[in-house]
Amino acid sequence: MGGMIENFHAVIPAGGSGTRLWPVSRTARPKFLHDILGTGSTLLQSTWARTAELADPDRTWVVTGRGHVEAVRRQLPDLLRDRVVAEPSPKDSAAAIGLAAMLIHREDPDAVIGSFSADHSITNTGEFLSVVEQAAAAAAATGDIVTIGITPTYPATSYGYIETGALLRIADAPTARRAAEFVEKPDAATARTYAYSGRYRWNAGMFIMRASVLLELLEEQAPDLHAGLTRIVGAWDTEDRDAVQSEVWPTLEKKAIDYVVAEPAAAAGRVIVVPGDFGWDDVGDFDSVAKLRQPVPGEVRGVSAIGEDVEVVDVESRGVVISETERLVALVGVEDLVVVDTDDALLVTSRAYAQQVKQVVDRVKEAGRDDLL
Amino acid sequence: MGGMIENFHAVIPAGGSGTRLWPVSRTARPKFLHDILGTGSTLLQSTWARTAELADPDRTWVVTGRGHVEAVRRQLPDLLRDRVVAEPSPKDSAAAIGLAAMLIHREDPDAVIGSFSADHSITNTGEFLSVVEQAAAAAAATGDIVTIGITPTYPATSYGYIETGALLRIADAPTARRAAEFVEKPDAATARTYAYSGRYRWNAGMFIMRASVLLELLEEQAPDLHAGLTRIVGAWDTEDRDAVQSEVWPTLEKKAIDYVVAEPAAAAGRVIVVPGDFGWDDVGDFDSVAKLRQPVPGEVRGVSAIGEDVEVVDVESRGVVISETERLVALVGVEDLVVVDTDDALLVTSRAYAQQVKQVVDRVKEAGRDDLL
Repeated sequence: MGGMIENFHAVIPAGGSGTRLWPVSRTARPKFLHDILGTGSTLLQSTWARTAELADPDRTWVVTGRGHVEAVRRQLPDLLRDRVVAEPSPKDSAAAIGLAAMLIHREDPDAVIGSFSADHSITNTGEFLSVVEQAAAAAAATGDIVTIGITPTYPATSYGYIETGALLRIADAPTARRAAEFVEKPDAATARTYAYSGRYRWNAGMFIMRASVLLELLEEQAPDLHAGLTRIVGAWDTEDRDAVQSEVWPTLEKKAIDYVVAEPAAAAGRVIVVPGDFGWDDVGDFDSVAKLRQPVPGEVRGVSAIGEDVEVVDVESRGVVISETERLVALVGVEDLVVVDTDDALLVTSRAYAQQVKQVVDRVKEAGRDDLL
Repeated sequence: MGGMIENFHAVIPAGGSGTRLWPVSRTARPKFLHDILGTGSTLLQSTWARTAELADPDRTWVVTGRGHVEAVRRQLPDLLRDRVVAEPSPKDSAAAIGLAAMLIHREDPDAVIGSFSADHSITNTGEFLSVVEQAAAAAAATGDIVTIGITPTYPATSYGYIETGALLRIADAPTARRAAEFVEKPDAATARTYAYSGRYRWNAGMFIMRASVLLELLEEQAPDLHAGLTRIVGAWDTEDRDAVQSEVWPTLEKKAIDYVVAEPAAAAGRVIVVPGDFGWDDVGDFDSVAKLRQPVPGEVRGVSAIGEDVEVVDVESRGVVISETERLVALVGVEDLVVVDTDDALLVTSRAYAQQVKQVVDRVKEAGRDDLL
């Protein structure tokens, strides 16, 4: 495999519940396990297919909840048995990536790791791979934290942004720039300024760095978390692995890697941004799904159907139908609608309100209908 | 029963497929057999409850397709066995009402009959009854065809209209007027003129007249139909009833009673209109259903739910959910939507496009999916 990057290890955090994609995404079967875009692969499988171009199975790790380990293994037949890291409970990305980094570092002290969420979508894989190559080169050359800054294609308010600084002129990473600052999800007016400035990029949560650098920063910024992970890894190859992990894990800080590592590093002038423009989307809600899923020839005009053998009849309508059932779905005179048909729950929403699907999940929870979550 | 009208017999034609109410209304289980308004009674049962105030069971007839006889009997326990007239195939209202009129006339030569579709909705029963009383009085006093002209509440283009003429000053029917003309469903501009003129009424297809008058007009205007019905009725009480009906019925003209009887009578100055304003609606499509079904206290704000144990969660939405399943239905950010959830088909339409649901039925038919019709 000629394109592989030296010392590169891929980490795929497969967590998150994807509540805005209910009723497809459920607690027991979250977003990354679904082919929610109707591509023929689940989001996890598509992520694996991309990272397979960057690292061999021996150097590809998936971190996921204990309850999802079996499903992850079923979906990824090439995933090696000891490359699955099971989390007893969700502890956000600092613990997940930190644990994987520590396990990788003891095998390969020169490792450069890249972390890529299991539930995002990338349209242009070739461009993605070349950007990650630059990022890995920059990480190896500098010892900094490298992130990929997505070129905004609209004034998104649901993503954080990265302010970029000076061009760094790194030999194998010609587009790499200093990251000036990570900024939170902006309001609509600020998002417009950012999106059209040419200076701000979306934070896609992709981090590429030497494992040793990540662990140093973790020790510096979150010593308790680092110590806890060290204890877990110390027992990893012994019969006490489960016992120690079960004891220590609940005590770990629940923090995002952005907060624990990337932001302090940026403040210290140690973060690099490699700009990326490869059709990235976090598939955060059904508006994303509708946007990413254009009607293809042969499909009913204006309405995209996602699911096995979905039958749609549409009359003067536009939208997306996502179905897990065998029922005929008929749309008549509706615009930009999203219909999600599952065995026990039906959702009808408009693209503009897709973010608020979360409220339905909250209400279902309040009603004690855990069977629907 | 003090309110009963002398010599009055009620005829309930229970036909029509209600394709614009698909997927609730199906060939095997048409509109009139459904509680589509969520009142706790099917449209047929509600019609029966109204006519029961006008005529005893002995004087109440239901004309329906052979395939629906058992369902009709199950829904109407008070319906007498020999008061159900089964049609071998749909032959429209002239044949249906003509046959009932002939069967009634041989029992009661002085009968006044009133025909009331099994699948319409009336909100104010008290007012309806008093209007029918006037109509029956006018029919008995004059020997004319009496129809009820509904006061338009909006410029409907889906109803025919009746142009009213001079007040007739009939003793027990003080509001009765001469009918000048029946007019077809108008375009939108004409409908506006009609609706606000104070001179045009909706034709609700309710006819009240002496049975003898109807039969005379039938003989005059449709002699073949009259002869055919006479043959069928001649064998009615013999063991040849089914054989004769099966032989003759297919040869009968398929015509609406409006066309065969009411329009020629109007041209001859023999039709009377009694104006009625009692919340009549033909429940022709889901827009009617949405209009008639206002949210009631305790229901989810803005969304009406129709069906047994329907569970709806709505977020900033407005519309109607009609469900025959046990699934949770969630609406998020949608306006004036109609969602119809059945075991094998799901319909999502907007109130404005409700008329076009018929197109879905046509498409399902073309696709050979008779199981869904």
